[in-house]
Amino acid sequence: MPLTAEIITIGSELLTGLTVNTNAAFIGERLTAVGAVVRAVVTVDDAEADIRNAVETALSRADRVVCTGGLGPTNDDVTKKAVAACFGRELVLLPEAMDRIEAAFRAMGRDMAPANRLQALIPEGAEPVPNRVGQAPGFILSRDGRELIVLPGVPSEMRAMMDETVIPRLRAAAGTASAALALRTAGLPESDVGRKLEDFPSLFPDVRVGFYPDSTGVTVRLMTFGSSAEACESRIRQAGESAADRLGRAVYGTGGDSLESVIGRLLAESGRTLAVAESCTGGLISHRITNVAGSSAYFIRGVVAYHNSVKTGLLGVPESVLQTAGAVSAECAAAMAEGVRTAAGTDFGLSATGIAGPGGGTEEKPVGLVFIGCADASGTVTEKHRFLRERLWNKERSATAALDLLRRRLRGFA
Amino acid sequence: MPLTAEIITIGSELLTGLTVNTNAAFIGERLTAVGAVVRAVVTVDDAEADIRNAVETALSRADRVVCTGGLGPTNDDVTKKAVAACFGRELVLLPEAMDRIEAAFRAMGRDMAPANRLQALIPEGAEPVPNRVGQAPGFILSRDGRELIVLPGVPSEMRAMMDETVIPRLRAAAGTASAALALRTAGLPESDVGRKLEDFPSLFPDVRVGFYPDSTGVTVRLMTFGSSAEACESRIRQAGESAADRLGRAVYGTGGDSLESVIGRLLAESGRTLAVAESCTGGLISHRITNVAGSSAYFIRGVVAYHNSVKTGLLGVPESVLQTAGAVSAECAAAMAEGVRTAAGTDFGLSATGIAGPGGGTEEKPVGLVFIGCADASGTVTEKHRFLRERLWNKERSATAALDLLRRRLRGFA
Repeated sequence: MPLTAEIITIGSELLTGLTVNTNAAFIGERLTAVGAVVRAVVTVDDAEADIRNAVETALSRADRVVCTGGLGPTNDDVTKKAVAACFGRELVLLPEAMDRIEAAFRAMGRDMAPANRLQALIPEGAEPVPNRVGQAPGFILSRDGRELIVLPGVPSEMRAMMDETVIPRLRAAAGTASAALALRTAGLPESDVGRKLEDFPSLFPDVRVGFYPDSTGVTVRLMTFGSSAEACESRIRQAGESAADRLGRAVYGTGGDSLESVIGRLLAESGRTLAVAESCTGGLISHRITNVAGSSAYFIRGVVAYHNSVKTGLLGVPESVLQTAGAVSAECAAAMAEGVRTAAGTDFGLSATGIAGPGGGTEEKPVGLVFIGCADASGTVTEKHRFLRERLWNKERSATAALDLLRRRLRGFA
Repeated sequence: MPLTAEIITIGSELLTGLTVNTNAAFIGERLTAVGAVVRAVVTVDDAEADIRNAVETALSRADRVVCTGGLGPTNDDVTKKAVAACFGRELVLLPEAMDRIEAAFRAMGRDMAPANRLQALIPEGAEPVPNRVGQAPGFILSRDGRELIVLPGVPSEMRAMMDETVIPRLRAAAGTASAALALRTAGLPESDVGRKLEDFPSLFPDVRVGFYPDSTGVTVRLMTFGSSAEACESRIRQAGESAADRLGRAVYGTGGDSLESVIGRLLAESGRTLAVAESCTGGLISHRITNVAGSSAYFIRGVVAYHNSVKTGLLGVPESVLQTAGAVSAECAAAMAEGVRTAAGTDFGLSATGIAGPGGGTEEKPVGLVFIGCADASGTVTEKHRFLRERLWNKERSATAALDLLRRRLRGFA
């Protein structure tokens, strides 16, 4: 059985949306990485009763509870009082913490406010967690084999204390190992990805599967737990291969890969170059390509042809194409891709033209209709897509479709 | 008594740290803005028992519970089942939602997977919350005067449904009136914005002030509560004028304004046109400009000049500028802005050239050094900036600086 864990984050700034809860994400990621199963994240105000209630509930369900926030020197920081009360303990002075606080004030040449003394208090009998970055120490309280780990809410302090003390300790206690793999896909809606992996839970009952759609595609996340790291790694490799097999050419990478980083690698490795002609995407394709460090080696030129005069001028789209097929057409997408490739003298030309909306749609050419094109020495391919939402959504999906067409072209799939 | 509220966010990606919980921050901010007191945020897995337990607990403590996530078409989405069980209801088909889903698949020319039908189910007797952005409808269940509001986890859908249905409804129920105002600023770091409003709490003790920095500038949010809407509106107007006065020309708009929407309004109103030449920003300036609906009326051409041959060719930057001052220089930024303006025949030319990093920096021209330029009939202005972080951060800040230069130029400030 893997260890179960819960996270409690304390502070009104988290409840009122003033601060996004990045601490919970960090702690969740670290706990998951050592094989603990995070069951819940609970955020409450700096109120003694709420904190006590959250701590008691979490300790009734989880082996480990990590609690952050409310250890500062101000009046509204009541975490320690609440936690000490849960365990029926008094707060006592931790001499080494007091020394650190006094030394810090000496170094700043400032007098210590009496309130700062409070930061050196921890519940009697608690095991201190040293704070190398700041002043407030953390601490660990145990009960019936369960542990409550209390850390400051300052992200830099909390992160250091997690990585230096809490995680090594958990790794030793967990006894379980884990392994995870993310497959990145493009070109399939979430429902199709789900359908292709429908039988996965019966084939790999010990592997958890999650689907995470966003504007760049759907990420499939696999995770498994076991007694040895080697067994987990081998099992996740097996599951990953099976999933990749089912998903086929939609899989463009793993882990932190993006379509633009994969394209960049393929272009850089083969010494080939790229130019982009955009209409409805308005610069987003070029923006994504240039988010990759080193893209200047293969990305030569981008043209945002918002006006038809730019399409005929800079891109050499024939007037006749605009007059017969129109600017939103496969013919125009092809001419744009070929035109920018020729003008820039690159190996590849990539294009997108469509109606991002909300205005400009007609019955024949509705909002969300997009044509993309990819030209190289062997010819030109185009694709028609129909996206259905608001302007930014349509731009984002169009850019993803164009990048994915280039990816498949580079792989020999399109 | 103000209404109490709790937020439940569902999804393993939130527990394992794959996704930072921005939904909870958004909902917390909106609930707080209408005077509700958010008591807790609870995140649990897509597990029926965990969801039921979280919903029952929240409903035992709070007047309103907003629950997001797990309404997708895949197997791991069980929110509706769990919630229906809490209320002892069956799931029934919502015909208007089914119509929307079928229409969407027809428009895409694709077959609907059977799983997509699940998205049109809501608990019997629940009040539907329309989803204008996506397919899955939300719904509201009531019990003993308390309400459970269930929304999809896709941020764009959830946000629209909060603002269009949930918040107006809560405002009507809340009893207390409130008013809020957001001032959007660019060009000042958060610490300077804070300093300029240092005496604000003593002048307006009844107005809450929050600072929200992001890549597009710093938003100052003012909020006040009271018994009448008129009194709140008048008070917030007073506070807003005082804050705008202190912040001066850094304030570019209010509410949902963006630099690009303000620029768009100024250009469209005066019938003037724009062309953009980008190097280090890689298309991001054009992307932001074209995020504004109707931008095709004034945005004519964008050129992403990643290779120096594009700077000399398409933009007419003299070879001598590249050889003496270099591609990252005020001279090059000026020549790019003038070159793209002349070539496109527009009223304004806007440019950015710099070193986005992580590679390419030198002692003299370090990573993050950026020059921006703006040319019009009366001449050309350039600015030098130094950004200090990673590639995307530098691109984003550079694009904001360029758009803000154009905004100030249009206003007669630069």
